[in-house]
Amino acid sequence: MLTFYYVPNTCALASHIALEEAGAAYTGVRMNFADEDQKKPEYLAINSKARVPALVTERGVLTETPAILVYLCQQYPAANMAPLDDPFELARVQSFNSYLCSSVHVAHAHRMRGHRWSDDPAAHAAMRAFVPQSVGEGFRLIEEEMFEGPWVMGDACGIADFYLFTLAQWLDGDGVDIATLPKIQDHHKRMAQRPSVVRALEQEFA
Amino acid sequence: MLTFYYVPNTCALASHIALEEAGAAYTGVRMNFADEDQKKPEYLAINSKARVPALVTERGVLTETPAILVYLCQQYPAANMAPLDDPFELARVQSFNSYLCSSVHVAHAHRMRGHRWSDDPAAHAAMRAFVPQSVGEGFRLIEEEMFEGPWVMGDACGIADFYLFTLAQWLDGDGVDIATLPKIQDHHKRMAQRPSVVRALEQEFA
Repeated sequence: MLTFYYVPNTCALASHIALEEAGAAYTGVRMNFADEDQKKPEYLAINSKARVPALVTERGVLTETPAILVYLCQQYPAANMAPLDDPFELARVQSFNSYLCSSVHVAHAHRMRGHRWSDDPAAHAAMRAFVPQSVGEGFRLIEEEMFEGPWVMGDACGIADFYLFTLAQWLDGDGVDIATLPKIQDHHKRMAQRPSVVRALEQEFA
Repeated sequence: MLTFYYVPNTCALASHIALEEAGAAYTGVRMNFADEDQKKPEYLAINSKARVPALVTERGVLTETPAILVYLCQQYPAANMAPLDDPFELARVQSFNSYLCSSVHVAHAHRMRGHRWSDDPAAHAAMRAFVPQSVGEGFRLIEEEMFEGPWVMGDACGIADFYLFTLAQWLDGDGVDIATLPKIQDHHKRMAQRPSVVRALEQEFA
Protein backbone atom coordinates (compact mmCIF):
# COMPACT_ATOMS: atom_id res chain seq x y z
CA MET A 1 0.00 0.00 0.00
CA LEU A 2 1.27 3.45 -0.93
CA THR A 3 0.74 6.64 1.05
CA PHE A 4 0.75 9.85 -0.94
CA TYR A 5 1.31 13.20 0.76
CA TYR A 6 0.17 16.24 -1.18
CA VAL A 7 -1.02 19.82 -0.92
CA PRO A 8 -3.85 20.80 -3.29
CA ASN A 9 -2.94 22.96 -6.26
CA THR A 10 0.75 22.09 -6.13
CA CYS A 11 2.95 20.05 -8.46
CA ALA A 12 1.88 17.00 -6.44
CA LEU A 13 -1.18 16.86 -8.69
CA ALA A 14 0.91 15.31 -11.48
CA SER A 15 1.76 12.29 -9.32
CA HIS A 16 -1.81 12.20 -8.00
CA ILE A 17 -3.10 11.88 -11.56
CA ALA A 18 -0.56 9.13 -12.27
CA LEU A 19 -1.69 7.19 -9.18
CA GLU A 20 -5.29 7.40 -10.39
CA GLU A 21 -4.36 6.58 -13.98
CA ALA A 22 -2.44 3.52 -12.76
CA GLY A 23 -5.30 2.31 -10.62
CA ALA A 24 -2.84 2.16 -7.73
CA ALA A 25 -3.92 1.22 -4.21
CA TYR A 26 -2.95 4.25 -2.15
CA THR A 27 -4.00 6.44 0.71
CA GLY A 28 -3.92 10.16 0.01
CA VAL A 29 -2.93 12.49 2.83
CA ARG A 30 -3.90 16.08 2.19
CA MET A 31 -1.75 18.70 3.86
CA ASN A 32 -2.02 22.45 4.07
CA PHE A 33 0.63 25.09 3.54
CA ALA A 34 -1.46 27.61 5.54
CA ASP A 35 -0.99 25.42 8.62
CA GLU A 36 2.65 24.79 7.65
CA ASP A 37 2.00 21.04 7.76
CA GLN A 38 5.10 20.54 5.62
CA LYS A 39 7.32 21.92 8.41
CA LYS A 40 5.91 19.77 11.21
CA PRO A 41 8.26 17.17 12.71
CA GLU A 42 6.10 14.23 11.62
CA TYR A 43 6.32 15.35 7.99
CA LEU A 44 9.99 16.34 8.13
CA ALA A 45 10.66 12.75 9.19
CA ILE A 46 9.13 11.73 5.85
CA ASN A 47 10.61 14.50 3.70
CA SER A 48 13.33 16.64 5.22
CA LYS A 49 13.00 19.04 2.27
CA ALA A 50 9.63 20.19 3.69
CA ARG A 51 8.01 19.99 0.29
CA VAL A 52 5.39 17.92 -1.49
CA PRO A 53 4.83 15.45 -2.98
CA ALA A 54 6.13 12.48 -1.00
CA LEU A 55 5.24 8.89 -1.80
CA VAL A 56 5.75 6.38 0.99
CA THR A 57 6.32 2.89 -0.38
CA GLU A 58 7.06 -0.41 1.34
CA ARG A 59 10.76 0.21 0.65
CA GLY A 60 10.95 3.84 1.68
CA VAL A 61 10.03 7.37 0.73
CA LEU A 62 10.28 8.87 -2.74
CA THR A 63 10.21 12.60 -3.44
CA GLU A 64 10.50 14.87 -6.50
CA THR A 65 7.84 14.76 -9.19
CA PRO A 66 9.95 13.52 -12.15
CA ALA A 67 11.28 10.61 -10.05
CA ILE A 68 7.87 9.61 -8.69
CA LEU A 69 6.31 9.75 -12.16
CA VAL A 70 8.81 7.37 -13.78
CA TYR A 71 8.63 5.08 -10.74
CA LEU A 72 4.86 4.81 -11.08
CA CYS A 73 5.21 4.08 -14.80
CA GLN A 74 7.56 1.22 -13.98
CA GLN A 75 5.41 -0.14 -11.15
CA TYR A 76 2.23 -0.04 -13.25
CA PRO A 77 3.38 -0.82 -16.79
CA ALA A 78 -0.12 -1.84 -17.89
CA ALA A 79 -1.20 1.79 -17.57
CA ASN A 80 1.15 2.74 -20.43
CA MET A 81 2.11 6.08 -18.94
CA ALA A 82 5.57 6.27 -20.56
CA PRO A 83 7.52 4.59 -23.40
CA LEU A 84 9.51 2.39 -21.02
CA ASP A 85 10.76 0.06 -23.75
CA ASP A 86 12.39 2.83 -25.77
CA PRO A 87 15.25 4.62 -23.96
CA PHE A 88 15.35 7.46 -26.49
CA GLU A 89 11.62 8.16 -26.23
CA LEU A 90 11.76 7.83 -22.47
CA ALA A 91 14.61 10.35 -22.44
CA ARG A 92 12.44 12.78 -24.44
CA VAL A 93 9.71 12.44 -21.81
CA GLN A 94 12.25 12.92 -19.05
CA SER A 95 13.70 15.95 -20.84
CA PHE A 96 10.26 17.55 -21.02
CA ASN A 97 9.55 16.83 -17.36
CA SER A 98 12.97 18.11 -16.36
CA TYR A 99 12.27 21.36 -18.20
CA LEU A 100 9.01 21.69 -16.28
CA CYS A 101 10.61 21.09 -12.87
CA SER A 102 13.80 23.11 -13.33
CA SER A 103 12.56 26.00 -15.49
CA VAL A 104 8.77 26.40 -15.67
CA HIS A 105 7.92 25.46 -12.08
CA VAL A 106 10.88 27.54 -10.89
CA ALA A 107 9.65 30.60 -12.83
CA HIS A 108 6.22 30.16 -11.22
CA ALA A 109 7.73 29.78 -7.75
CA HIS A 110 9.09 33.32 -7.92
CA ARG A 111 5.53 34.54 -7.41
CA MET A 112 5.19 33.24 -3.85
CA ARG A 113 8.53 31.75 -2.84
CA GLY A 114 10.94 34.63 -3.42
CA HIS A 115 12.32 34.04 0.07
CA ARG A 116 14.17 31.05 -1.36
CA TRP A 117 16.40 33.34 -3.39
CA SER A 118 16.52 36.64 -1.50
CA ASP A 119 15.76 38.14 1.90
CA ASP A 120 14.90 41.53 0.40
CA PRO A 121 11.15 42.33 0.18
CA ALA A 122 11.79 44.71 -2.74
CA ALA A 123 13.45 41.89 -4.65
CA HIS A 124 10.49 39.62 -3.87
CA ALA A 125 8.17 42.21 -5.39
CA ALA A 126 10.41 42.51 -8.46
CA MET A 127 10.38 38.73 -8.88
CA ARG A 128 6.59 38.59 -8.53
CA ALA A 129 6.17 41.28 -11.16
CA PHE A 130 8.27 39.32 -13.65
CA VAL A 131 6.36 36.01 -13.34
CA PRO A 132 3.94 36.65 -16.22
CA GLN A 133 6.94 37.14 -18.51
CA SER A 134 9.07 34.22 -17.33
CA VAL A 135 6.22 31.71 -17.04
CA GLY A 136 4.82 33.00 -20.33
CA GLU A 137 8.14 32.45 -22.09
CA GLY A 138 8.40 28.90 -20.76
CA PHE A 139 4.90 28.01 -21.92
CA ARG A 140 5.39 29.69 -25.30
CA LEU A 141 8.45 27.53 -25.89
CA ILE A 142 6.35 24.47 -25.08
CA GLU A 143 3.52 25.68 -27.34
CA GLU A 144 5.78 26.52 -30.26
CA GLU A 145 8.67 24.05 -30.04
CA MET A 146 7.96 21.08 -27.80
CA PHE A 147 4.28 20.14 -27.95
CA GLU A 148 3.85 17.38 -30.53
CA GLY A 149 0.09 16.90 -30.45
CA PRO A 150 -2.45 15.62 -29.80
CA TRP A 151 -0.57 14.86 -26.56
CA VAL A 152 2.69 16.39 -25.38
CA MET A 153 4.89 13.65 -26.80
CA GLY A 154 2.66 12.69 -29.72
CA ASP A 155 0.07 9.94 -29.92
CA ALA A 156 0.15 8.66 -26.35
CA CYS A 157 -1.04 10.46 -23.22
CA GLY A 158 1.28 9.95 -20.27
CA ILE A 159 3.31 11.50 -17.48
CA ALA A 160 4.41 14.54 -19.52
CA ASP A 161 0.72 15.34 -20.01
CA PHE A 162 -0.11 14.94 -16.33
CA TYR A 163 2.73 17.27 -15.42
CA LEU A 164 1.97 19.89 -18.08
CA PHE A 165 -1.70 19.94 -17.05
CA THR A 166 -0.62 20.49 -13.45
CA LEU A 167 1.56 23.50 -14.19
CA ALA A 168 -0.98 24.94 -16.63
CA GLN A 169 -3.46 25.02 -13.72
CA TRP A 170 -1.33 27.90 -12.38
CA LEU A 171 -1.33 30.03 -15.55
CA ASP A 172 -4.22 32.26 -14.56
CA GLY A 173 -2.68 33.05 -11.18
CA ASP A 174 0.67 33.62 -12.88
CA GLY A 175 -0.85 36.28 -15.13
CA VAL A 176 -0.61 34.30 -18.36
CA ASP A 177 -3.75 34.01 -20.51
CA ILE A 178 -4.05 30.38 -21.58
CA ALA A 179 -6.05 31.54 -24.61
CA THR A 180 -2.76 32.87 -26.04
CA LEU A 181 -1.50 29.25 -26.01
CA PRO A 182 -4.04 27.43 -28.17
CA LYS A 183 -2.41 23.99 -28.18
CA ILE A 184 -1.94 24.07 -24.42
CA GLN A 185 -5.47 25.37 -23.90
CA ASP A 186 -6.95 22.58 -26.00
CA HIS A 187 -4.75 20.03 -24.19
CA HIS A 188 -5.91 21.41 -20.86
CA LYS A 189 -9.57 21.00 -21.75
CA ARG A 190 -9.07 17.42 -22.88
CA MET A 191 -7.01 16.54 -19.82
CA ALA A 192 -9.62 18.06 -17.48
CA GLN A 193 -12.17 15.56 -18.81
CA ARG A 194 -9.98 12.54 -18.24
CA PRO A 195 -11.44 10.35 -15.46
CA SER A 196 -8.10 10.12 -13.62
CA VAL A 197 -7.83 13.91 -13.55
CA VAL A 198 -11.43 14.32 -12.41
CA ARG A 199 -10.88 11.85 -9.57
CA ALA A 200 -7.58 13.40 -8.46
CA LEU A 201 -9.05 16.91 -8.42
CA GLU A 202 -12.18 15.70 -6.59
CA GLN A 203 -10.00 14.25 -3.84
CA GLU A 204 -7.78 17.31 -3.59
CA PHE A 205 -10.70 19.73 -3.29
CA ALA A 206 -13.27 17.52 -1.50
CA MET B 1 28.15 8.42 -33.24
CA LEU B 2 27.05 10.96 -30.65
CA THR B 3 27.78 14.69 -30.71
CA PHE B 4 27.90 16.41 -27.35
CA TYR B 5 27.53 20.19 -27.07
CA TYR B 6 28.81 21.73 -23.87
CA VAL B 7 30.19 24.86 -22.26
CA PRO B 8 33.03 24.34 -19.76
CA ASN B 9 32.21 24.70 -16.07
CA THR B 10 28.45 24.22 -16.60
CA CYS B 11 26.13 21.39 -15.61
CA ALA B 12 27.06 19.76 -18.93
CA LEU B 13 30.09 18.32 -17.12
CA ALA B 14 27.87 15.66 -15.50
CA SER B 15 26.91 14.24 -18.89
CA HIS B 16 30.48 14.65 -20.12
CA ILE B 17 31.71 12.47 -17.25
CA ALA B 18 29.01 9.89 -18.03
CA LEU B 19 30.09 9.76 -21.68
CA GLU B 20 33.67 9.13 -20.57
CA GLU B 21 32.65 6.63 -17.92
CA ALA B 22 30.61 4.74 -20.51
CA GLY B 23 33.43 4.66 -23.03
CA ALA B 24 31.00 6.14 -25.54
CA ALA B 25 32.09 7.10 -29.05
CA TYR B 26 31.29 10.80 -29.25
CA THR B 27 32.49 14.09 -30.58
CA GLY B 28 32.59 16.92 -28.08
CA VAL B 29 31.77 20.42 -29.28
CA ARG B 30 32.93 23.11 -26.91
CA MET B 31 30.93 26.34 -26.96
CA ASN B 32 31.41 29.63 -25.20
CA PHE B 33 28.86 31.76 -23.35
CA ALA B 34 31.12 34.84 -23.79
CA ASP B 35 30.60 34.57 -27.56
CA GLU B 36 26.92 33.73 -27.01
CA ASP B 37 27.38 30.54 -29.03
CA GLN B 38 24.23 29.17 -27.38
CA LYS B 39 22.11 31.88 -29.05
CA LYS B 40 23.45 31.43 -32.58
CA PRO B 41 21.00 30.09 -35.16
CA GLU B 42 22.97 26.90 -35.78
CA TYR B 43 22.76 26.00 -32.08
CA LEU B 44 19.16 27.11 -31.63
CA ALA B 45 18.32 24.61 -34.39
CA ILE B 46 19.74 21.94 -32.07
CA ASN B 47 18.37 23.28 -28.78
CA SER B 48 15.80 26.06 -28.94
CA LYS B 49 16.19 26.57 -25.19
CA ALA B 50 19.65 28.11 -25.87
CA ARG B 51 21.21 26.10 -23.07
CA VAL B 52 23.68 23.29 -22.64
CA PRO B 53 24.09 20.36 -22.65
CA ALA B 54 22.67 18.91 -25.87
CA LEU B 55 23.36 15.38 -27.03
CA VAL B 56 22.76 14.70 -30.72
CA THR B 57 21.98 11.03 -31.32
CA GLU B 58 21.09 9.12 -34.47
CA ARG B 59 17.43 9.50 -33.53
CA GLY B 60 17.45 13.14 -32.55
CA VAL B 61 18.53 15.62 -29.91
CA LEU B 62 18.31 15.14 -26.16
CA THR B 63 18.58 17.97 -23.65
CA GLU B 64 18.36 18.36 -19.85
CA THR B 65 20.96 16.73 -17.64
CA PRO B 66 18.75 14.26 -15.71
CA ALA B 67 17.30 12.91 -18.98
CA ILE B 68 20.68 12.57 -20.72
CA LEU B 69 22.19 10.85 -17.69
CA VAL B 70 19.55 8.09 -17.49
CA TYR B 71 19.65 7.69 -21.28
CA LEU B 72 23.41 7.08 -21.19
CA CYS B 73 22.96 4.56 -18.36
CA GLN B 74 20.47 2.65 -20.51
CA GLN B 75 22.60 2.83 -23.65
CA TYR B 76 25.73 1.68 -21.85
CA PRO B 77 24.50 -0.76 -19.20
CA ALA B 78 27.93 -2.37 -18.82
CA ALA B 79 29.19 0.85 -17.26
CA ASN B 80 26.84 0.31 -14.27
CA MET B 81 26.08 3.99 -13.82
CA ALA B 82 22.61 3.51 -12.28
CA PRO B 83 20.55 0.70 -10.69
CA LEU B 84 18.48 0.14 -13.83
CA ASP B 85 17.07 -3.19 -12.66
CA ASP B 86 15.55 -1.78 -9.49
CA PRO B 87 12.83 0.84 -10.08
CA PHE B 88 12.84 1.98 -6.46
CA GLU B 89 16.59 2.51 -6.35
CA LEU B 90 16.49 4.17 -9.77
CA ALA B 91 13.79 6.50 -8.45
CA ARG B 92 16.04 7.42 -5.52
CA VAL B 93 18.79 8.35 -7.99
CA GLN B 94 16.31 10.32 -10.06
CA SER B 95 15.00 12.07 -6.96
CA PHE B 96 18.51 13.15 -6.03
CA ASN B 97 19.24 14.39 -9.54
CA SER B 98 15.91 16.18 -9.69
CA TYR B 99 16.75 17.97 -6.45
CA LEU B 100 20.05 19.07 -7.97
CA CYS B 101 18.48 20.40 -11.17
CA SER B 102 15.39 22.06 -9.70
CA SER B 103 16.74 23.36 -6.39
CA VAL B 104 20.54 23.41 -6.08
CA HIS B 105 21.40 24.42 -9.65
CA VAL B 106 18.57 26.96 -9.55
CA ALA B 107 19.92 28.51 -6.34
CA HIS B 108 23.35 28.79 -8.00
CA ALA B 109 21.87 30.33 -11.14
CA HIS B 110 20.69 33.34 -9.15
CA ARG B 111 24.32 34.46 -9.01
CA MET B 112 24.65 35.16 -12.74
CA ARG B 113 21.23 34.56 -14.32
CA GLY B 114 18.97 36.86 -12.31
CA HIS B 115 17.63 38.21 -15.61
CA ARG B 116 15.59 35.01 -15.88
CA TRP B 117 13.48 36.06 -12.92
CA SER B 118 13.54 39.86 -12.84
CA ASP B 119 14.43 42.86 -14.99
CA ASP B 120 15.43 44.94 -11.97
CA PRO B 121 19.21 45.32 -11.42
CA ALA B 122 18.66 45.89 -7.71
CA ALA B 123 16.83 42.57 -7.49
CA HIS B 124 19.68 40.88 -9.36
CA ALA B 125 22.11 42.21 -6.75
CA ALA B 126 19.85 41.00 -3.95
CA MET B 127 19.67 37.55 -5.54
CA ARG B 128 23.45 37.41 -5.95
CA ALA B 129 23.98 38.33 -2.33
CA PHE B 130 21.74 35.48 -1.17
CA VAL B 131 23.48 32.72 -3.17
CA PRO B 132 25.90 31.65 -0.40
CA GLN B 133 22.90 31.06 1.85
CA SER B 134 20.63 29.26 -0.63
CA VAL B 135 23.36 27.11 -2.20
CA GLY B 136 24.78 26.46 1.25
CA GLU B 137 21.39 25.25 2.52
CA GLY B 138 20.98 22.90 -0.44
CA PHE B 139 24.40 21.38 0.05
CA ARG B 140 23.96 21.10 3.81
CA LEU B 141 20.78 19.11 3.26
CA ILE B 142 22.73 16.80 0.96
CA GLU B 143 25.59 16.52 3.48
CA GLU B 144 23.33 15.85 6.45
CA GLU B 145 20.33 14.00 5.03
CA MET B 146 20.91 12.58 1.56
CA PHE B 147 24.53 11.49 1.18
CA GLU B 148 24.78 7.78 1.96
CA GLY B 149 28.53 7.24 1.55
CA PRO B 150 30.99 6.33 0.31
CA TRP B 151 29.12 7.42 -2.82
CA VAL B 152 25.97 9.52 -2.98
CA MET B 153 23.60 6.56 -3.14
CA GLY B 154 25.75 4.12 -1.18
CA ASP B 155 28.18 1.52 -2.46
CA ALA B 156 28.08 2.29 -6.19
CA CYS B 157 29.42 5.37 -7.96
CA GLY B 158 27.10 6.58 -10.71
CA ILE B 159 25.19 9.45 -12.27
CA ALA B 160 24.22 11.05 -8.95
CA ASP B 161 27.94 11.28 -8.16
CA PHE B 162 28.80 12.79 -11.55
CA TYR B 163 26.09 15.41 -11.08
CA LEU B 164 26.96 16.25 -7.46
CA PHE B 165 30.65 16.62 -8.37
CA THR B 166 29.64 19.01 -11.16
CA LEU B 167 27.60 21.32 -8.94
CA ALA B 168 30.19 21.16 -6.16
CA GLN B 169 32.71 22.60 -8.65
CA TRP B 170 30.75 25.87 -8.27
CA LEU B 171 30.83 26.05 -4.45
CA ASP B 172 33.84 28.32 -4.20
CA GLY B 173 32.38 30.83 -6.68
CA ASP B 174 29.05 30.60 -4.88
CA GLY B 175 30.69 31.66 -1.62
CA VAL B 176 30.30 28.31 0.16
CA ASP B 177 33.38 26.79 1.80
CA ILE B 178 33.47 23.11 0.85
CA ALA B 179 35.50 22.45 4.01
CA THR B 180 32.26 23.01 5.96
CA LEU B 181 30.81 19.99 4.10
CA PRO B 182 33.22 17.20 5.00
CA LYS B 183 31.41 14.34 3.24
CA ILE B 184 31.01 16.36 0.06
CA GLN B 185 34.60 17.56 0.23
CA ASP B 186 35.91 14.01 0.57
CA HIS B 187 33.61 12.87 -2.25
CA HIS B 188 34.87 15.70 -4.42
CA LYS B 189 38.50 14.73 -3.91
CA ARG B 190 37.79 11.10 -4.77
CA MET B 191 35.73 12.04 -7.83
CA ALA B 192 38.46 14.39 -9.10
CA GLN B 193 40.86 11.44 -9.26
CA ARG B 194 38.51 9.26 -11.28
CA PRO B 195 39.91 8.73 -14.81
CA SER B 196 36.58 9.66 -16.46
CA VAL B 197 36.51 12.95 -14.58
CA VAL B 198 40.14 13.71 -15.39
CA ARG B 199 39.49 13.07 -19.08
CA ALA B 200 36.30 15.14 -19.21
CA LEU B 201 37.96 18.09 -17.46
CA GLU B 202 41.03 17.84 -19.67
CA GLN B 203 38.83 18.12 -22.75
CA GLU B 204 36.77 20.99 -21.35
CA PHE B 205 39.82 23.05 -20.41
CA ALA B 206 42.29 21.97 -23.10
